[in-house]
Amino acid sequence: MKPFSQPAGLASFLGALPQPDPSAREAAALRQQQLTKPPGSLGMLEQIAIFLAGWQGPAIHADRIQVTLFAGNHGVTKQGVSPYPPEVTGQMVANFNAGGAAINALAGALGLNLSVHALDLDRPTGDISVTDAMTVEEALDALNAGIAAVDPASDVLVIGEMGIGNTTIAAALCAVSLGGAGADWAGAGTGLDTAGVVNKARVIDRALARSGSARDAFATLKSLGGRELAAMAGAVCAARHHRVPVLLDGFVACAALAPLVAESPGILDHCLAGHRSAERGHARLLEHFNLRPLLDLNMRLGEGSGAALATAVIRAAVATHTGMATFDSAGVSDRG
Amino acid sequence: MKPFSQPAGLASFLGALPQPDPSAREAAALRQQQLTKPPGSLGMLEQIAIFLAGWQGPAIHADRIQVTLFAGNHGVTKQGVSPYPPEVTGQMVANFNAGGAAINALAGALGLNLSVHALDLDRPTGDISVTDAMTVEEALDALNAGIAAVDPASDVLVIGEMGIGNTTIAAALCAVSLGGAGADWAGAGTGLDTAGVVNKARVIDRALARSGSARDAFATLKSLGGRELAAMAGAVCAARHHRVPVLLDGFVACAALAPLVAESPGILDHCLAGHRSAERGHARLLEHFNLRPLLDLNMRLGEGSGAALATAVIRAAVATHTGMATFDSAGVSDRG
Repeated sequence: MKPFSQPAGLASFLGALPQPDPSAREAAALRQQQLTKPPGSLGMLEQIAIFLAGWQGPAIHADRIQVTLFAGNHGVTKQGVSPYPPEVTGQMVANFNAGGAAINALAGALGLNLSVHALDLDRPTGDISVTDAMTVEEALDALNAGIAAVDPASDVLVIGEMGIGNTTIAAALCAVSLGGAGADWAGAGTGLDTAGVVNKARVIDRALARSGSARDAFATLKSLGGRELAAMAGAVCAARHHRVPVLLDGFVACAALAPLVAESPGILDHCLAGHRSAERGHARLLEHFNLRPLLDLNMRLGEGSGAALATAVIRAAVATHTGMATFDSAGVSDRG
Repeated sequence: MKPFSQPAGLASFLGALPQPDPSAREAAALRQQQLTKPPGSLGMLEQIAIFLAGWQGPAIHADRIQVTLFAGNHGVTKQGVSPYPPEVTGQMVANFNAGGAAINALAGALGLNLSVHALDLDRPTGDISVTDAMTVEEALDALNAGIAAVDPASDVLVIGEMGIGNTTIAAALCAVSLGGAGADWAGAGTGLDTAGVVNKARVIDRALARSGSARDAFATLKSLGGRELAAMAGAVCAARHHRVPVLLDGFVACAALAPLVAESPGILDHCLAGHRSAERGHARLLEHFNLRPLLDLNMRLGEGSGAALATAVIRAAVATHTGMATFDSAGVSDRG
């Protein structure tokens, strides 16, 4: 997929989205009825197999799974919105590169291809409570970093993030895209106490007042988004272009897509919710997206960790769909 | 573990259960606080790591995972409690052995060691609506088949089952062990319609009236249990003896343990609920057991399928607990 050379490129893309193949979906649904199990008894695994067929065609697969992480720094950390210092973003990127973070352990255990993209960590975005996060050029660069990161040969894509302060950015994007105020979307993030969450909500409200009501997705990301959030939005667009199904992670990874959804509600049709995060706004956000999470394990780490774990469910759906015998082939009696 | 030579052997075992090691749990909890993530942010993965340490010691592991399936036939199928003919039990065992069932696909994808134990399929148990399911000797044999099936060298054990008619058996065991009537525990099983479920509930009520109120676990299994259910109860006991953590599957696999829980509430302390089945009684049963399921994917197949998939969560817990860097080792700043 070509990079966006101007803001209108995103709007143009969102206006003409690739669609799933209904005939491949029907063939997959028919096969599910023939496998040696009571109809429907594999539950969401059956629905996932049919979903994958719509994007991949009848021969579904989940061998090559890419996990792409984007990291960014945020001027809004000056407002005391995180208990961790902003230096931790770069330290955690070093930890990713050294193999010591949770996502490294998960990617190793599950056989996922992990890549990490640190986006101008030495140049935090503008403090959104007083100014735009990015210039037009910076926002385009961030979107395009996401587009460039997607391997078109991936069977499934997991997107994740790291960025001290980015649950504040995420909450602002949700509020402006889907409605509500700071208090509706602000959560504890990496571990704020109650007073910290109240402050965070006020910071978000100041950002919303400064930014004004929602415009198009690009303008919203430029005004309120962080680099890693814009990159995740770009990656989801590129995956759609290449018909690569996406597993969404938690609050920040999903919030990055809220501006896209506000402009083009079908943009998430190639996405599944990997998990429901314990971060406060995520359950509400998934309801807005009309997505049922595959996992609900009280995780709230980011890094793509919940979605990475959910790849096991995707692979189970593929393994049963492609590996099981049919009633006919196995000589098993169907219902009387 | 030695087989039970008489019914009192089970009661004796249930009266003196091995307990988890509190110091290993404490050490695991301390390590979780030091890993490079906000405290608690891995949610249930952290709790699983601590749980495993209690049974396995500080060096937790989940490489060797055994899936053991037990199959049995049930005289109660004469009462029209399943839409499938009882011949399907044997046909599905052949399908397991040929590698064509859902559990084969899942075990293959996840690298699990699958073994299948067909228990006297040519001799269905007594029709519980009119007579005891088993003699004392038959019930001992079934329990001991479960004990013998457990590999003490397994890191984690998954137990599952196959048996046309066994959701009726399961519902009867739940009702007599935990209270309620047939209508409280009967569900659609492999796909009964509403009239079928009503009939099933009446059959269960006749079995309950014949059998009388709950006695000890052995007497309950003898009166109402099927061979594969008694075997699963035996396997859970053997796993406890060997300190092997168990992942529980769905309604039937859990119902097999209801008589044990009624006699010895701590018997499931070495067990986690792999998933919540869509079969009607399972959510209620897990509440009785005070277990929160790892997965909730609307599955209702049996065969250990839900628990098999949940092994991915267990392995993720081990991978993060053992593989992550600490704040100190990675040079990441902890909270300010």
